[in-house]
Amino acid sequence: MEPVLFYGVPHGCSFGSIVALEWLGQPYRLHRIDMTAKHSRTFARVNPLGQTPAMVTEDGGTLTESLAILHNIAARDLDNGLGFAQGSKEFDRLNWMLSHLHTTLHSDLGYGWNAFKLVEDDDAGRNMLRKMAREKAAMDFAFLQRVLENSEWLIGDHRTVADAYFIGIARWGSDLDLFDMASEFPGIHKHMQKLEADPAVIFAHAIEEEREAVSLGGFRGHATVEELEPRIAA
Amino acid sequence: MEPVLFYGVPHGCSFGSIVALEWLGQPYRLHRIDMTAKHSRTFARVNPLGQTPAMVTEDGGTLTESLAILHNIAARDLDNGLGFAQGSKEFDRLNWMLSHLHTTLHSDLGYGWNAFKLVEDDDAGRNMLRKMAREKAAMDFAFLQRVLENSEWLIGDHRTVADAYFIGIARWGSDLDLFDMASEFPGIHKHMQKLEADPAVIFAHAIEEEREAVSLGGFRGHATVEELEPRIAA
Ligand SMILES: N[C@@H](CCC(=O)N[C@@H](CS)C(=O)NCC(=O)O)C(=O)O
Ligand SMILES: N[C@@H](CCC(=O)N[C@@H](CS)C(=O)NCC(=O)O)C(=O)O
Repeated sequence: MEPVLFYGVPHGCSFGSIVALEWLGQPYRLHRIDMTAKHSRTFARVNPLGQTPAMVTEDGGTLTESLAILHNIAARDLDNGLGFAQGSKEFDRLNWMLSHLHTTLHSDLGYGWNAFKLVEDDDAGRNMLRKMAREKAAMDFAFLQRVLENSEWLIGDHRTVADAYFIGIARWGSDLDLFDMASEFPGIHKHMQKLEADPAVIFAHAIEEEREAVSLGGFRGHATVEELEPRIAA
Repeated sequence: MEPVLFYGVPHGCSFGSIVALEWLGQPYRLHRIDMTAKHSRTFARVNPLGQTPAMVTEDGGTLTESLAILHNIAARDLDNGLGFAQGSKEFDRLNWMLSHLHTTLHSDLGYGWNAFKLVEDDDAGRNMLRKMAREKAAMDFAFLQRVLENSEWLIGDHRTVADAYFIGIARWGSDLDLFDMASEFPGIHKHMQKLEADPAVIFAHAIEEEREAVSLGGFRGHATVEELEPRIAA
């Protein structure tokens, strides 16, 4: 079977991996995980940490962590330009950007997600976490905005897995009601708008929201638990 | 000039990059950053975010983010085994582990670091952050401990940049007084002990603590700001 990507709703960072798969253009399937529901035994086998994205590869192996999955996708066809050859300057820059996005932006906005998870009556705790998320993520967005001042894309002159990943997490800035992106970070907002107009991004939204989704890539449908179970390596 | 690594004290995650450079065995230099002091203009040019590790490469380019620096180091000599060839299964696993360490363990223990930074009289806030750090990092350590049950090293049968990175951040578990590692996570503790006995790790501690440091790798001394300034690309 094709590689299968487990993506999480609502609004998982797995969004970027869907976009990258669409851009790659090779056959793949998806498996939906409701992150607010009890997880299936299958998902627990694929990722004991219960996080998305996760991937089941052709040989039944499992791979988790966005950065690893995005590198896996890019390496499937370096000529496609989603990634760069190991040892090159661009490879360094891609790793720098992916890591930056993940560990800075993802983890700083994470304070905002954690604020949501606090028990209802802990307003002081919630406010503190939201304040931390805002302060930290504001620095991250400002930094990325400077990068985008000199460049049409996050790395070099064409789209890469970094842009795919970016669009899946940058949206949290407004999702979590932390920023008005258009007025506070117009440069980020512009890059988001450009990506939002991309068919792969439109497709990924439709998938998340269970609307009719038109793939210009290699989407071969959702894989069921029954299809997946016998494939996952012991 | 050789590549120069900017490392941070006290107890920066840059520790792992020093260890990896020692293991690589090729010439390199170091530049020390006191993270509690005002930063030099040079450091601000190398990393506007003021974080370590950062690297100035042979051509004067700058590279930040541990994951990118570790990949850069590994790619300098794949035969050394610190990393793996792009597109291989082991490359996937290395990315998975590096990302896991960074975004899970590093960012979860980060809640503990942030607890320290809170204003003195906010005990409730501090306790909440410490509790979050403990809960989250406990899951991360338990997970890594399961990985190490079946394996002598974090990836496969020899040391990689993942082990180098691990030893630089796992120590925060006891540094931050969150865990008694030996009794709570004996499997992690054992892996740490093994690494602590490695000459490269002993070297990196001596460097951090400004004791006499014996390099079995290619350490060529510290680079001064005066040496660095003209080299850094505009
Ligand atoms: N380090 C992981 C983090 C993934 C992650 O945070 N996933 C979130 C969705 S964005 C998730 O699954 N959360 C549910 C949970 O942690 O229980 C990665 O980069 O893939
Ligand atoms: N995402 C960065 C994070 C680096 C980081 O957190 N560095 C810490 C030391 S462990 C630091 O420089 N802190 C000082 C600061 O953030 O001002 C990486 O992976 O290299």
